[in-house]
Amino acid sequence: MNWKGRRQILKILIKNIKIITMDDARPFIDCGIIVIEDGKIAEVMEAGHFSNNSDNRSDGQFDRIIDGNNKLALPGFINAHTHVGMVPFRNYANDLPLEEWLFNKLFPMEDKLTADDIYWASQLGIAEMLRTGTTCFADMYMFEDTLAGVAESTGIRADLARGLQCFDDDFDIKTDRRVLESVELFNQYHNAANGRIKIRFGPHAVYTCRPKYLIKTTELAGELGAGIHIHLSETVNENKNCISAYGKSPTRHLADLGVFDLPTIAAHGVHLSDEDISILSKHKVSIIHNPASNLKLGSGVMRAAKAIEGGINLGLGTDGASSNNTLDMMREVYLAAVLSKGVFEDSVGIKAYEALKMATVNGAQALGLEDAGQLKPGMKADITLIDLDKPHYCPLNDAISAVAYCGKGSDVHTVMVDGKILYEDGEYKTIDMEAVKTNVKRITERLFA
Amino acid sequence: MNWKGRRQILKILIKNIKIITMDDARPFIDCGIIVIEDGKIAEVMEAGHFSNNSDNRSDGQFDRIIDGNNKLALPGFINAHTHVGMVPFRNYANDLPLEEWLFNKLFPMEDKLTADDIYWASQLGIAEMLRTGTTCFADMYMFEDTLAGVAESTGIRADLARGLQCFDDDFDIKTDRRVLESVELFNQYHNAANGRIKIRFGPHAVYTCRPKYLIKTTELAGELGAGIHIHLSETVNENKNCISAYGKSPTRHLADLGVFDLPTIAAHGVHLSDEDISILSKHKVSIIHNPASNLKLGSGVMRAAKAIEGGINLGLGTDGASSNNTLDMMREVYLAAVLSKGVFEDSVGIKAYEALKMATVNGAQALGLEDAGQLKPGMKADITLIDLDKPHYCPLNDAISAVAYCGKGSDVHTVMVDGKILYEDGEYKTIDMEAVKTNVKRITERLFA
Repeated sequence: MNWKGRRQILKILIKNIKIITMDDARPFIDCGIIVIEDGKIAEVMEAGHFSNNSDNRSDGQFDRIIDGNNKLALPGFINAHTHVGMVPFRNYANDLPLEEWLFNKLFPMEDKLTADDIYWASQLGIAEMLRTGTTCFADMYMFEDTLAGVAESTGIRADLARGLQCFDDDFDIKTDRRVLESVELFNQYHNAANGRIKIRFGPHAVYTCRPKYLIKTTELAGELGAGIHIHLSETVNENKNCISAYGKSPTRHLADLGVFDLPTIAAHGVHLSDEDISILSKHKVSIIHNPASNLKLGSGVMRAAKAIEGGINLGLGTDGASSNNTLDMMREVYLAAVLSKGVFEDSVGIKAYEALKMATVNGAQALGLEDAGQLKPGMKADITLIDLDKPHYCPLNDAISAVAYCGKGSDVHTVMVDGKILYEDGEYKTIDMEAVKTNVKRITERLFA
Repeated sequence: MNWKGRRQILKILIKNIKIITMDDARPFIDCGIIVIEDGKIAEVMEAGHFSNNSDNRSDGQFDRIIDGNNKLALPGFINAHTHVGMVPFRNYANDLPLEEWLFNKLFPMEDKLTADDIYWASQLGIAEMLRTGTTCFADMYMFEDTLAGVAESTGIRADLARGLQCFDDDFDIKTDRRVLESVELFNQYHNAANGRIKIRFGPHAVYTCRPKYLIKTTELAGELGAGIHIHLSETVNENKNCISAYGKSPTRHLADLGVFDLPTIAAHGVHLSDEDISILSKHKVSIIHNPASNLKLGSGVMRAAKAIEGGINLGLGTDGASSNNTLDMMREVYLAAVLSKGVFEDSVGIKAYEALKMATVNGAQALGLEDAGQLKPGMKADITLIDLDKPHYCPLNDAISAVAYCGKGSDVHTVMVDGKILYEDGEYKTIDMEAVKTNVKRITERLFA
């Protein structure tokens, strides 16, 4: 290791490394190098094939050289739908009927949350995501300004939305507390931290937002230039109630209200009709698949292959720790690949590479990140290195299948965002885990007192 | 650490530890002790509640004291259906139509396997199982004598069956090669290694064994006192073809042939009718649920809750690495719990504790191990310790849910069988992993040349 003090690292060389590029033109390199300069990927190539302008490089030119022997690089995962602030509720109230869990257990707990709780919960959630290879996440919850501050200090990439809801048509968009918080969040944090942080509007769902509220918040988001983050067709009941109230599916309803005229990520999509898929595809709405949460809450299994076939850009997310119960994108990749096979009884289904696309390049597209989700020159250096020295990677045989079907978040060895190492071999560079654990203990003792 | 040389450890104390006992009378102890004597569990109790005959114990009485702070003990997992010898085919030939995978890819590879391949593959597979908390496995494959030797030397508990198949009625049970190997295996290894190794007969399935062959091998197994390990209703096609050939379901067919008159573990049971469940329950056949393999091969999702409701003892297995692609029972526990909820849209479904039962106490019952699968006095000291110092266990809130919904095999810190530590904090006590890796590399290079 040749860290040169604490100054920002400008040039990093990763050598002798296997690379899953997620670039369809060359998805896998068995032994290659990655050159990182000023937070961007400068070069990705097979070992021994330095490009002309790199021919004369020697190791001394780099601020840091990482030996990639027995390691695998891939783009950092993009967790495109979560509620980081919910980590204190991890493993709380499981195996219950949905309504009992939500109304009797979770909601009363959420009422107790403070900004201080979210401050520590955010650090814990981000620590867990970094530990398991995630370099970017999209969040919808409360106290998002606190989360934005923690995203800024920890170095992770974030796309944040203050959750919006309104059950009454008698509201004033200019004074609605949640709308005001959204505007303030946007003004303070959109494109903050060298563009690492983006802000969206987060109208929660068709069943928590009156149509007029959806129209008004969408208008305001449009004026500001913010995109939308929303829940969509998570449960059969959501669909039923929407059809009963408005005579149409949640997708049709939101499309008609103009919500989808803005860049939108819509989480879940468990119960989408063929017509819904067609509408979403036409409006270029990205659907965020949350297989673990959908399973655990008994919501169902989305027709992911059908959605892809219908032209939808499908990202991947963990949802909150209260319904997952972890924030490990490797498990979501696994589930995305195998559920499509097992539940729909098709051994081809969604292939390993397609599931990895959801967690990387599709997630980037969903969040409007044109220069993330792949390892190729010009992309942001948001990179995850996996340690292959594990029994379950022996023999490796096919690296892409190995990651999808054998991978665990705990295999992650190193994670960098914008070329800055945030986690490496058990050590967090920007998070004081002892303080986090102490404070989360204090917080949960109060919450569950 | 206070190892006293290399002699067998007689008394171990694990203190300050959280314990999932899997004893329904007291499933969880938040801070307790476990006393192990001569390979058995002598005491399990809350800290500060030593029983009378232990009151005067001091630390000096123990050969080893393990500090359980921030750790969780639970019974070692029982992987009740696998094919360890298939680990060289891990991540080979994925995302293919089932027939192409099986006939064009897998079978030609299997033809190349030698006893030497199985020797190293067995060590690798056992290493992976130990690493992920498994202390006992049931296997069906070829070269089972080699596997038996490796089970003996590595210290894991094993229930082994030489796979039997016969497509022709013109066989002689006295000279059939596979039957002879089974008998020899039984005579050499049944109850070997202080009872750690048991041998069964392994008629592969209804579609690979003629009825007459099933009758004859069952008779012979019965004469020897061996149980049966078989595949059952893994795919829709297996059912269809059985009905077409014999006019009844595989379950009815095997029951009528007398196979289920012997103690039987039947793997998969993905496609069981209510009548099948009733037959299996009546014959006390244990079904081994293999959720990961069933998903990946597109076989479907078994109605696990229905089977339990019908009185079936449901164990859990990984199946082989060629269709999983790992041998991590923590993932199977997770899948068993969440698939029942998501696929059948019931957020209660199979609870975390029920899924853990499958991997422990039910597995023990399936394999006829009366003194395994629970942590209570008199049981074998087959124990897995999980390291809770991970972001995904913070906060823990509910330990049983935490293991089922957040757990990864990599969380395992220590594994013992018969009170003998076989894996601890990255170190294998009975396996030379460098030699294993070198040899598996050599083997796969030949296989895939």
